[in-house]
Amino acid sequence: MLSCRQSRESERAAGSIRPAFRSAFGVARVALIALGVALCAAGCTTPATTTAAPPAAVSAAAALPSWRDGRAKQTIQKFVADVTREGSPNYVPPAERIAVFDNDGTLWSEQPLYFQFAFMLDQVKAAAPKHPEWKNNPAFKALVAKDYGALAGLQKQVLQLVAVANSGMTVDEYDKTIRNWLATARHPKFNRPFTELVYQPQLELLAYLRANGFKTFIVSGGTIEFMRPWVEQAYGIPPEQVIGSSQVVQYQMHDGQGTLVRQPKIDFVDDGPGKPVGIYRSIGRKPILAFGNSDGDLQMLQYTASGSGPHLALLVHHDDAVREFAYDRTSKIGKLDKAWDEAIADGWTVVSMKDDWQTIYPAPKQ
Amino acid sequence: MLSCRQSRESERAAGSIRPAFRSAFGVARVALIALGVALCAAGCTTPATTTAAPPAAVSAAAALPSWRDGRAKQTIQKFVADVTREGSPNYVPPAERIAVFDNDGTLWSEQPLYFQFAFMLDQVKAAAPKHPEWKNNPAFKALVAKDYGALAGLQKQVLQLVAVANSGMTVDEYDKTIRNWLATARHPKFNRPFTELVYQPQLELLAYLRANGFKTFIVSGGTIEFMRPWVEQAYGIPPEQVIGSSQVVQYQMHDGQGTLVRQPKIDFVDDGPGKPVGIYRSIGRKPILAFGNSDGDLQMLQYTASGSGPHLALLVHHDDAVREFAYDRTSKIGKLDKAWDEAIADGWTVVSMKDDWQTIYPAPKQ
Repeated sequence: MLSCRQSRESERAAGSIRPAFRSAFGVARVALIALGVALCAAGCTTPATTTAAPPAAVSAAAALPSWRDGRAKQTIQKFVADVTREGSPNYVPPAERIAVFDNDGTLWSEQPLYFQFAFMLDQVKAAAPKHPEWKNNPAFKALVAKDYGALAGLQKQVLQLVAVANSGMTVDEYDKTIRNWLATARHPKFNRPFTELVYQPQLELLAYLRANGFKTFIVSGGTIEFMRPWVEQAYGIPPEQVIGSSQVVQYQMHDGQGTLVRQPKIDFVDDGPGKPVGIYRSIGRKPILAFGNSDGDLQMLQYTASGSGPHLALLVHHDDAVREFAYDRTSKIGKLDKAWDEAIADGWTVVSMKDDWQTIYPAPKQ
Repeated sequence: MLSCRQSRESERAAGSIRPAFRSAFGVARVALIALGVALCAAGCTTPATTTAAPPAAVSAAAALPSWRDGRAKQTIQKFVADVTREGSPNYVPPAERIAVFDNDGTLWSEQPLYFQFAFMLDQVKAAAPKHPEWKNNPAFKALVAKDYGALAGLQKQVLQLVAVANSGMTVDEYDKTIRNWLATARHPKFNRPFTELVYQPQLELLAYLRANGFKTFIVSGGTIEFMRPWVEQAYGIPPEQVIGSSQVVQYQMHDGQGTLVRQPKIDFVDDGPGKPVGIYRSIGRKPILAFGNSDGDLQMLQYTASGSGPHLALLVHHDDAVREFAYDRTSKIGKLDKAWDEAIADGWTVVSMKDDWQTIYPAPKQ
């Protein structure tokens, strides 16, 4: 097994608990470090036409400019060097270099509420007049009350409400709804389009991995429909490498054209123990690198870390109340508790947002 | 829309009905035309370590040596030239060049019985002593009686039997079972490993498409588990580009290791109207090229042909009783009836195995 294990002491030091839920209002405005990863502007209403090309191979030192030198960056660079060096006992052929990333809280922000929930709230409110039966539905009540704590525990029920709200829409109509929302909605704290609140260090890491022959996937509790319209431009990850929760769709003929229509039923919840299942269904090989940030990623990280081959399991620790948010064991959204314990016990790499990341977000679009 | 429509008359000529089910015993033994697509030898028990590299761009004329000159080959070459030529009104950016192929009967043979059914027969037989309740199960009775006609109509029920037969196996154990079977089983007519009964012209077409920036996927009614162990070596299609039927798996911890365990329940049947659904779930964009051979591919072809963008819909017509099998409208396995009517009506390209393919199978392995 690759020696990517760190001492428990250093993990504990890196992961010391900080007060949760201190909101941040300051936004670091830093120069966008060009890496060939085009960010989706507020008005991104057309599908990406090309996958962001990986940059030419770059030296390890120059590859991750928004990562501060430290154990996390060194661990990543050592792992990548080791699995890509032919002749290394830990060499992994390119086809098996599968890297999976959670989305919410790992590639973009998730506070004060999963961004998809903000979208769903608007959708469910719009559909509510047709659904008086929702009046006593706990998920509906929590949505209307913006009770983020309750919503965090009702993810499946919220998905179910949305499934009913959008039943009968074609997938193309639904896609337009999402693109329109993303083009106009703004984050309540940062007053920026949600699609700009992606993490610059992770954009660099994704590009660095691809430049080293990795295939990068998203494995998220969010739905495939909500991610696919923008993640290709934002992260360079094409729709076919987006694994997420999904709703049942049915094939129908409309005016002689084959169409997919959304049905009022959840198909799959890609969270917690669902993540290894989603990976199995959609990828069919075990990843060698997995990156998450919360207990919803625990099983994905465990699965990646199982077996004897080289692997690297990473967690973002949200400990930067100034530049982003600070939350972990007691948070209602993105709770990091059991996965943190397991990271400490098993030597997974915990990345401190405050200490390891020089920059949080890319510069705002002009 | 791209002008890939052919006259109805020529389609009818290409697709004239031939007597079904004439078995072929002669195997054309032709030199393997090297295209960088390594075929899985009988003993392929290790996973492919790299995706078959696409060949360097080749001239259109030289790209498909096992395709005889004729309308089908010309239509394919014209389509590929048109969508890849920058400045063409039908230009399609590489990221959107999605090509989907059915497997059984389109990329490899499927007579006298879907090869996976032969595998399942062995599995269900082995499990039968533990399941006296199967005695009156129609799918079980058809399997034991080798009643291929009945089995063809009981695909879901057969999958269900297998799901029960293998419940409790880890996915790794099941994978080994499949590899072992494939390494030893032989086709009853051709006395060759099943994995050698792939179509040489299609190997060339897959490589030609990839050399032109297409991403190639399998979309099959067969299960993901049965295809993934060998299709990467056979077709150059990696596991994550294999869409198929699947069984429910559950994440469990075994001795501290994250493991996926098969459950006695079908997850998804990727056949007929399920194919566009599978494409939506796993790819998230509409293909521009789809290749099938039977009514189970009808909706996949319809879906690909829907909309205003350039597209190419193709069907293999099994009309070569000498070199393979001849069957179509009345066949129990791989019935081509409604899809043929629609091909004629909508100008899809029908490929005559007898007339359009110079070679059927690659040369046997030494």
